[in-house]
Amino acid sequence: MPVRPTRVAVLGAGSWGTTFSKVLADGGASVMLWARRPELAHEINTGHRNSDYLPGINLPAALRADSRLGAVLEGAELVFVAVPSQTLRANLTAAASSIPSDAIVVSLMKGIEQGTLKRMSEVIGEELGIGGAQIAVASGPNLALEIAKQWPTAAVIASDDLVTAQTVALAATNKYFRSFVNTDVIGTEIGGVLKNIVAVAIGIVDGVGYGENTKASILTRGLAEMTDFAVAYGGRPETLSGLAGLGDLIATSESSLSRNNTAGRLLGQGYSFGDVVATMKQTAEGLASIAPVLELAAARGVSMPIALQVAQVLDGTLDPRDIAPHLTTDDLPQGE
Amino acid sequence: MPVRPTRVAVLGAGSWGTTFSKVLADGGASVMLWARRPELAHEINTGHRNSDYLPGINLPAALRADSRLGAVLEGAELVFVAVPSQTLRANLTAAASSIPSDAIVVSLMKGIEQGTLKRMSEVIGEELGIGGAQIAVASGPNLALEIAKQWPTAAVIASDDLVTAQTVALAATNKYFRSFVNTDVIGTEIGGVLKNIVAVAIGIVDGVGYGENTKASILTRGLAEMTDFAVAYGGRPETLSGLAGLGDLIATSESSLSRNNTAGRLLGQGYSFGDVVATMKQTAEGLASIAPVLELAAARGVSMPIALQVAQVLDGTLDPRDIAPHLTTDDLPQGE
Repeated sequence: MPVRPTRVAVLGAGSWGTTFSKVLADGGASVMLWARRPELAHEINTGHRNSDYLPGINLPAALRADSRLGAVLEGAELVFVAVPSQTLRANLTAAASSIPSDAIVVSLMKGIEQGTLKRMSEVIGEELGIGGAQIAVASGPNLALEIAKQWPTAAVIASDDLVTAQTVALAATNKYFRSFVNTDVIGTEIGGVLKNIVAVAIGIVDGVGYGENTKASILTRGLAEMTDFAVAYGGRPETLSGLAGLGDLIATSESSLSRNNTAGRLLGQGYSFGDVVATMKQTAEGLASIAPVLELAAARGVSMPIALQVAQVLDGTLDPRDIAPHLTTDDLPQGE
Repeated sequence: MPVRPTRVAVLGAGSWGTTFSKVLADGGASVMLWARRPELAHEINTGHRNSDYLPGINLPAALRADSRLGAVLEGAELVFVAVPSQTLRANLTAAASSIPSDAIVVSLMKGIEQGTLKRMSEVIGEELGIGGAQIAVASGPNLALEIAKQWPTAAVIASDDLVTAQTVALAATNKYFRSFVNTDVIGTEIGGVLKNIVAVAIGIVDGVGYGENTKASILTRGLAEMTDFAVAYGGRPETLSGLAGLGDLIATSESSLSRNNTAGRLLGQGYSFGDVVATMKQTAEGLASIAPVLELAAARGVSMPIALQVAQVLDGTLDPRDIAPHLTTDDLPQGE
């Protein structure tokens, strides 16, 4: 039987790490949050705010921040990690000696490590030398600011070990946030990576000015494409139909706050890839992941017409107005 | 091998029947459209417009209208039916003797017949005395006005007989409209009925003022609920994950033009069921179908928490702000 953990640590005080800390504290846990900058830890402890990342949001008193990894991690039963995906390995190296040996480590990140093409949970397992029963990942339709406002949402916690997933889910549940569980870590993580690419495609369609039918067609065919990819890499189709696939895909695609959607809209309006990169402060994850995803798809023979057409818009070989991968016709009508 | 039909008839010159006639004509068919009112047939033939239902849309010259069923149906290889769902049986009685005996009859309607609780294709089979190989249904993310504007979209044609579905799909394909095929008539029709109820739930959430996470959570859990219902009645889960389930659900839920979404928003803003019915000219299908759907769900032991909560908002026993069926908690975290 899983037991609700009471001492938890969160690494990374950006918008998502801070929001998730609030979710955990509002669920009854005593939460220590690692902020790289001491002045941010000070603001969280004294003002109960993280004004750069979550303007206007009051943080709970049960949430304490510190810039020293040792102080944050001492006695932690669960360690949630929300650092930029490309810095994960370096951050784990720094934290490894302070993480209690029996702690469960939970990835809040969505991405693929450049170069190795590894998922975040794989990097965690390698760097900390722990097995699947000590690793979990969280995903779902989780726009940080909406959760910080306590608008109701649901998430999924995945682990190879069901009791591990349930233990984490018990901590990550409160009156406005419900965690479901599954044991498909691969499908859950792949959903979080691929949805960004489809969200760029939806943004392009928005930018061109098409309507809800076109977007719904691309979302539906995009989910099929995401599912084919996930299954080819050992994920389960039902995971992609759930919160970590479909749920996350819809929230990201429909939110005008999403960087991927914004990048797509600029492309759809006729800006070049170079213009978009120059305009946006942060790279949209969906743009960065297209090349590695197409590489991985080709390696397993997965057809990804939507990702391919986004890549063609990016390199300027396809007019955004012609992005309609669901209309790619064959001689005979195809099955769905 | 399916052959592209050249002579097709469409019964019903509302927005959807007229739009679908345009799709077929733009695909190369010679189309006869039945308009109940002679003056509407006259406007379509002389002005190439249907100004009441599709303002601003030019109709193709290959589309001819007539108010006489016999003239419309003579020589038709395909007969598409787009009359109000509760008038289907009476309209078929009037048309039966004019429908060529070897024609394929295609339902463009989404609904359940009140009293009998039968699907549209079942009513067609009964009234015309034809088997599944002569019956098809069309569904998908198909907001009529967007298609009339030639914004790209996809649809699905279902029939018990694959060649029948392919034959219809060949006619219903052009440069802005692509038809996929499947052989799951039950799942395809059930998707079209149930999505309206989830769209009302999304409308309620919009009206209350929650954000994209909440809507994405309800869409995802709503699709799971739709799938459970469809499977209990013999449909296939992959149909619900496709254009006739998910695709239609997203388009209806995201469109502010949808009557179901509008009804939900009014409820979410605090108007009563009586207020909503009085405010809206036409009944939203989602409101009308909740009672029969819950009855059918109970008969097969299907749990439908979202439909149930919408029913509770309608009868005034649940505050719209508390509609968050995905947060219904249990002691232990549940699987998705």
